[in-house]
Amino acid sequence: MHYTIDAIGLVRSSLARRELAPRQGDEGAPRALLELASDVREGLRGIAAGDELVVLTWLHQARRDVLVVHPRNEPERPLTGVFATRSPDRPNPIGLHRVRVLAAEDGVLEVEPLEAIDGTPIVDIKPVLAVGDH
Amino acid sequence: MHYTIDAIGLVRSSLARRELAPRQGDEGAPRALLELASDVREGLRGIAAGDELVVLTWLHQARRDVLVVHPRNEPERPLTGVFATRSPDRPNPIGLHRVRVLAAEDGVLEVEPLEAIDGTPIVDIKPVLAVGDH
Repeated sequence: MHYTIDAIGLVRSSLARRELAPRQGDEGAPRALLELASDVREGLRGIAAGDELVVLTWLHQARRDVLVVHPRNEPERPLTGVFATRSPDRPNPIGLHRVRVLAAEDGVLEVEPLEAIDGTPIVDIKPVLAVGDH
Repeated sequence: MHYTIDAIGLVRSSLARRELAPRQGDEGAPRALLELASDVREGLRGIAAGDELVVLTWLHQARRDVLVVHPRNEPERPLTGVFATRSPDRPNPIGLHRVRVLAAEDGVLEVEPLEAIDGTPIVDIKPVLAVGDH
């Protein structure tokens, strides 16, 4: 079964290249902007500074034909299934990023920390739940 | 920009209809099976009973043309942007479900709790991080 994702916006970041990006937001990632497409901006209604969000991205530079990896690209770690790792390389390269909102204005969210590189498509935004804590 | 998702498997659950499903896993959702397609089963290598995972699904019965909702379908709550809610109705209806693995065998994971209905396509599986806790 195939489904089509339409990007709802783009990440704007000082991180220009995948090789330079931290692996996770809490490993020194910078603040970044989430620029929403004009036709979906109404979907941000109610989001304000201080909110905790999960941002879903499409990791457009990832490989989709990889099923096992050495975790963290460290060859001494045993080959592990991609579904047991956070490798960006996987059949559907969706990134999950937990961020805090610094500012929300005119369809643009300033957030931190975000390890996604500049130009990464955004596919969804969700609130962090008090219970469950995805 | 458009991207194509290929389902990596299907949810098998006693939940047959969206109207009967709990809103979140921790609201009384049952255990369920994640049946992976044979061509991606190698990606499960390393997943074992006791692991905590985030399962990403494609909420195939959701509406994609909705940008504001009354949270939890309660009309007295003010209209809120879908990105500020966990409504299944949203431009890219990807579900996030935190589950615990009960058993892992031959490309099938038994997990709980999972509020997705029977037949929901699975698009990705990731480990919960010790830090960050998506």
